[in-house]
Amino acid sequence: MLTKLQLKLLEQVRHQNPVVLTIPNMVTPDKVADGLSAIGASPIMSTAPQEAAEMMKLADAITINLGTIHEEQANEITTILKNNQNQKPMVLDPVAIGASHYRLAFAKQLLQDHRFTVIRGNAGEIAALANVNWHSRGIDSGSGQADLHEIAKTVANKYHCIVVLTGKTDIITDGDNTFINQLSTSYFVTNVGSGDILSSVIAAYLGVSKDYYTAACTATTVFTATGVKAARESSGFGQWQVKFRDELASIKSSEVLSVL
Amino acid sequence: MLTKLQLKLLEQVRHQNPVVLTIPNMVTPDKVADGLSAIGASPIMSTAPQEAAEMMKLADAITINLGTIHEEQANEITTILKNNQNQKPMVLDPVAIGASHYRLAFAKQLLQDHRFTVIRGNAGEIAALANVNWHSRGIDSGSGQADLHEIAKTVANKYHCIVVLTGKTDIITDGDNTFINQLSTSYFVTNVGSGDILSSVIAAYLGVSKDYYTAACTATTVFTATGVKAARESSGFGQWQVKFRDELASIKSSEVLSVL
Amino acid sequence: MLTKLQLKLLEQVRHQNPVVLTIPNMVTPDKVADGLSAIGASPIMSTAPQEAAEMMKLADAITINLGTIHEEQANEITTILKNNQNQKPMVLDPVAIGASHYRLAFAKQLLQDHRFTVIRGNAGEIAALANVNWHSRGIDSGSGQADLHEIAKTVANKYHCIVVLTGKTDIITDGDNTFINQLSTSYFVTNVGSGDILSSVIAAYLGVSKDYYTAACTATTVFTATGVKAARESSGFGQWQVKFRDELASIKSSEVLSVL
Repeated sequence: MLTKLQLKLLEQVRHQNPVVLTIPNMVTPDKVADGLSAIGASPIMSTAPQEAAEMMKLADAITINLGTIHEEQANEITTILKNNQNQKPMVLDPVAIGASHYRLAFAKQLLQDHRFTVIRGNAGEIAALANVNWHSRGIDSGSGQADLHEIAKTVANKYHCIVVLTGKTDIITDGDNTFINQLSTSYFVTNVGSGDILSSVIAAYLGVSKDYYTAACTATTVFTATGVKAARESSGFGQWQVKFRDELASIKSSEVLSVL
Repeated sequence: MLTKLQLKLLEQVRHQNPVVLTIPNMVTPDKVADGLSAIGASPIMSTAPQEAAEMMKLADAITINLGTIHEEQANEITTILKNNQNQKPMVLDPVAIGASHYRLAFAKQLLQDHRFTVIRGNAGEIAALANVNWHSRGIDSGSGQADLHEIAKTVANKYHCIVVLTGKTDIITDGDNTFINQLSTSYFVTNVGSGDILSSVIAAYLGVSKDYYTAACTATTVFTATGVKAARESSGFGQWQVKFRDELASIKSSEVLSVL
Repeated sequence: MLTKLQLKLLEQVRHQNPVVLTIPNMVTPDKVADGLSAIGASPIMSTAPQEAAEMMKLADAITINLGTIHEEQANEITTILKNNQNQKPMVLDPVAIGASHYRLAFAKQLLQDHRFTVIRGNAGEIAALANVNWHSRGIDSGSGQADLHEIAKTVANKYHCIVVLTGKTDIITDGDNTFINQLSTSYFVTNVGSGDILSSVIAAYLGVSKDYYTAACTATTVFTATGVKAARESSGFGQWQVKFRDELASIKSSEVLSVL
């Protein structure tokens, strides 16, 4: 499994300081920004279509988060994506699209009009893109009978992108190759926005490496290893949040390896 | 006093995992979402009227927070409330309505058009609904001469709902019965959004019990006991915030009892 | 240097509890609100032009933060500033104006139409107001060759205001006098929103003292001393955030002096 990872990207993000433009939801932008900053990336967020072109020029990678999408923000996203002539890598985080036809329709429209590098979502969200029945409950992943590996592959092939399906087990696939990550802690579930942060962290890694599949696998592994290490060092939800931020800023490749 | 409480609701929220739809202010949504998640509820937030019907179907309870209300959000709230045909329990948090005629007018309109289960506010906010003069200072509770018990009762009777008037002493009344909660810590005042979190936590309890009055009394007692326990275990504002989140996720009925 | 400081303002803010109206960005409002609350000020935020007049009446000082400015918010800010007949002290935080012509144009319009008491920004942001070439990277300060003292003075004279140019070294000038603050910790850079918090903290100090220049110097010194003290007591980014909040709420003048 380790052959798929390039742990040197961990230091490369800290060294290159990639600018990640995130179009955030209104709930967790601070966590996302601090998470990016902690790993050594430079976060920027924007809500004005008027600056879309400049923001795109500035950015090394882009994350679109649909967590509290509304009409105005949808217009802004459309404007921003039109300005991505240089084909900078883009991550889509289709938050809770299993719970809202409005969100689902917008996500599908985005995926039809633009080529995303990565879609990062939980089982319910990726299942919705595969048109598979799934019992979703808002932002939770929900439960269902279908084979998640197949669902992830279907979506990857449908939209010619990498799918990062996160949960107790993370499934990462480009349609051909599949990488399984078993690192997990229940604190990720309790902490609202864990997925939002990961989506933007993946974008940071895409911003420093052209091998997008390996970058996505590595970002997810480093991120979850950081969470697991933090869980070992803390004894409560609040403490874990603190330790997780400590570790995002300081974890070394060798420590990631020792968690694996 | 204890006869009014059903501490088993603490475990019931963790077990049933109620979905709480919060229409949040823009300042503290992350704290509210993490607070709900910590107690075992499932938070969801939305800013699009297009998904109002689905969000209402999904939700076990709803909180409307007026902390940064503006025209667009007011329209969204109106749409959402129209979709509450199943009469799911609703909490109104009328933040700072004593400081803004715009907010006060909107709150009164909402209360006229819809039946809320609970209004949760500080002295200044509840006084404004009772048309009582009160020296409010923004989001602070301010000070005044009137009898807070009478004010709370007046508002409960006027709007046929439960009033949770929070402060150093919490007064909870359905107009007939009154419950007094003396648990308090000054960290609740320093921590911006303590009231916002409580309003959504009350909604979570309403989502798992039909005895709304007891649920509101219990939610408030458990919440404040958690804050007091956290205060005993920490020696600073930041540390308290961490401990408070630890305890929200882990506190037991027996520990609540030992704080009382 | 110490002759410029009035450390008694630290206690005066706690005692007078000034109301600071902040028009925030969407990323860090919670940090700003908690920061203000921790130092003893009373934060309020608003997104509705309808309440602008009342909010201005209530406020002891105002901060305008352009971090995620968009058209609607720009209209709101214009309405709010029109209501500042009493000439309450105002701080402008021109976040990332070096990265967006839209933001820069709006900031310049604001500065032309209104008299701000303080502009607080990093090197890239202040350089943009001085029309000096600077290599900005989003919210980062970037790098350039020009003399920062001269840039700060130029902007102070151009807009008849106090400039607080923050970075590893903080330069505070009213055009005639210049104050240098060398207190610094790299945690301020990692922590997204450090500048946002400082801008509103300066506003709180302006709210309790008519000697605005001394108040700005003192607020900046106390704020950075607090960060440095927190850094000495913590060993990671997350821990620092916690300690920083602890210290904002509790630091004494004597402790500030011992850090200097």
